[in-house]
Amino acid sequence: MRVGVLVSGRGSNLQALLDAQADGTLGAEVAVVLSDQPGAAALERAEAAGVPAIHVPVASKRARMREDDEQQFVSLLREHRAEWVVLAGFFRIVGTPLLEAYPDRILNIHPSLLPSFPGLHAQRQALEHGVRVTGCTVHLVDSGVDSGAILEQRTVPVGQADTEESLSSRVLAEEHLALPATVRRIAVAGFRREGRRVFWNDEGEERT
Amino acid sequence: MRVGVLVSGRGSNLQALLDAQADGTLGAEVAVVLSDQPGAAALERAEAAGVPAIHVPVASKRARMREDDEQQFVSLLREHRAEWVVLAGFFRIVGTPLLEAYPDRILNIHPSLLPSFPGLHAQRQALEHGVRVTGCTVHLVDSGVDSGAILEQRTVPVGQADTEESLSSRVLAEEHLALPATVRRIAVAGFRREGRRVFWNDEGEERT
Repeated sequence: MRVGVLVSGRGSNLQALLDAQADGTLGAEVAVVLSDQPGAAALERAEAAGVPAIHVPVASKRARMREDDEQQFVSLLREHRAEWVVLAGFFRIVGTPLLEAYPDRILNIHPSLLPSFPGLHAQRQALEHGVRVTGCTVHLVDSGVDSGAILEQRTVPVGQADTEESLSSRVLAEEHLALPATVRRIAVAGFRREGRRVFWNDEGEERT
Repeated sequence: MRVGVLVSGRGSNLQALLDAQADGTLGAEVAVVLSDQPGAAALERAEAAGVPAIHVPVASKRARMREDDEQQFVSLLREHRAEWVVLAGFFRIVGTPLLEAYPDRILNIHPSLLPSFPGLHAQRQALEHGVRVTGCTVHLVDSGVDSGAILEQRTVPVGQADTEESLSSRVLAEEHLALPATVRRIAVAGFRREGRRVFWNDEGEERT
């Protein structure tokens, strides 16, 4: 399974995918890494792993790209024969061009137990709300914000001495486990979706 | 610490409190059980445990009671010298009379990881949303629906073969642990609240 990864920042979740690939545990190949930011550290990580790393210039600073800008991503993903797309710290909203090119084949990872705390600063939202448990969610991308069908969730306890930084760090450690594991599970087992519910082919009728 | 428990139904969470009291692990005493329903099984459970059990007639079927009806609960709680109030499957909305009589001293238990899935049928909401993890939340009651500051949360994995019944049953098992443990912690340690955040006196500065 060939995966294209879209990034904007430091790319620690990309690194988790690359490390799993190097270990032979990803069950998939990172085919190309695309960044809307020219100097993204994630591009260097991709290059260091021998993966094509491309800066895609995007005209607007807005989260929602112009369709012709977004079409560049689609063209490059196709050129590198990506079958799935992973958003790994990609600070843009995915619109119609990507969603139509990769229907139900775009993954995002979000640092909360969705549907709690969608959007920006999820860990800060969790702290301010006073939850005792948060976590991360890997989900399919749809046209909403962090609203697509859920593939995987992992929990993280919140301590009362936690700061946004300490909590984010512990959630990130779980993201680094959840994202490669989900990519592997898609590659090895696959799933079907019924409405919002996801049924993995490798999960028995008994509850986990 | 003397606790008044408000019930409407079968009272399995009340039973968990009574069992903990009988075991000597509650750290508190159930002083009175009040039900808005005449035949509630919870009343029988209370009587069997030797706890005063009173049916409080409420005129309207609506979730929000008339203030004079609600005032009956306040009067009976005071008469039995209840210092805290626990809602254990109480199908009415708590309004001004109870909130003013017991400010920050009313607990509720809800079968989801709030703020996800407040309101009725939380387990069904969780299944239909397709979350992989749900749980239960013990929280302070405020004037909203399941919106008060969170005291405790416990997680429950959702299996893809789960039904509303199977999931509810596993969540309920966690409720039966969470509710007595939280009552005990309030009695033994106590907490302070800053906005929505709760700081337990027995939790160190290190994260749990």
